[in-house]
Amino acid sequence: MKPETKDECLKRLSYIEGHVDGVRRMVQQDKYCVDILKQTYAVRKAIEKLELLMLGSHMDTCVVPGIRDGREEQIVGELMELYKLADN
Amino acid sequence: MKPETKDECLKRLSYIEGHVDGVRRMVQQDKYCVDILKQTYAVRKAIEKLELLMLGSHMDTCVVPGIRDGREEQIVGELMELYKLADN
Amino acid sequence: MKPETKDECLKRLSYIEGHVDGVRRMVQQDKYCVDILKQTYAVRKAIEKLELLMLGSHMDTCVVPGIRDGREEQIVGELMELYKLADN
Amino acid sequence: MKPETKDECLKRLSYIEGHVDGVRRMVQQDKYCVDILKQTYAVRKAIEKLELLMLGSHMDTCVVPGIRDGREEQIVGELMELYKLADN
Repeated sequence: MKPETKDECLKRLSYIEGHVDGVRRMVQQDKYCVDILKQTYAVRKAIEKLELLMLGSHMDTCVVPGIRDGREEQIVGELMELYKLADN
Repeated sequence: MKPETKDECLKRLSYIEGHVDGVRRMVQQDKYCVDILKQTYAVRKAIEKLELLMLGSHMDTCVVPGIRDGREEQIVGELMELYKLADN
Repeated sequence: MKPETKDECLKRLSYIEGHVDGVRRMVQQDKYCVDILKQTYAVRKAIEKLELLMLGSHMDTCVVPGIRDGREEQIVGELMELYKLADN
Repeated sequence: MKPETKDECLKRLSYIEGHVDGVRRMVQQDKYCVDILKQTYAVRKAIEKLELLMLGSHMDTCVVPGIRDGREEQIVGELMELYKLADN
């Protein structure tokens, strides 16, 4: 991962950790289930955005050089696995 | 939320917090992007399972009594909103 | 299903059938894979919108009366099953 | 697309067309909404599987040669767009 992508990922992970902590406090304080669920969906969306950032970086630093180096079988296999996971 | 559901939610949230912390350490230690992405997908799946637990509890403690009390417009509106969020 | 919802569902299904037919022609004519995939995603989105329409109708015609009639176990069980399917 | 992938895609599209037709008949015959919704989810799953087949073929016939030919900007841009669509 490029240093600037790594920094951005760590910043987003701090935000996600704070968000999950907020969900825990809502549960402890017996907040309305529907309001808690809206927050857990927002956490999942924030994780999806983090994944797109990491995936974009993976394309540049691993996929392109890996395919040029003749390791396309491994690289394509990993990309297909990630698509299947994202779809589920 | 029933006390036993609340306890179960808090237990799962602790697990999710630990999992997100593990992702942060993987990023800090420059682990392979594909391995990190598999972990972020697992975090999302764990959140989805937590949501199903909370939703099931919401059905029993809010949806059923709310509809019996004549507040079906609010209750159905919230359920539809949650479906739309889950689908995206 | 209310008659106007049924009509709207059938209209949307005709549109979806036409869209799937368009995808088949693209495959037959060897169109670029990425362009075909964008169309299959659009078909899935159109189906999701149809599902929300049917689900909203189901709430009014089955969920609310069913819960009032004391069949909450069946009704809630079905709603939870649909949420799980939507999430996957 | 390789000829055998094209044949397989067309076979699956015929199956999907038949499935959508079955959904239309269920709506016309006023079948239970929950049963219809389970079928529309099944159609979406069948489309997702078709997408994975087309994407795997796209990797071999376009992604790998495109990156070797120096068109990585276009190829990676398209892959990222498809990921974003799949995620939503």
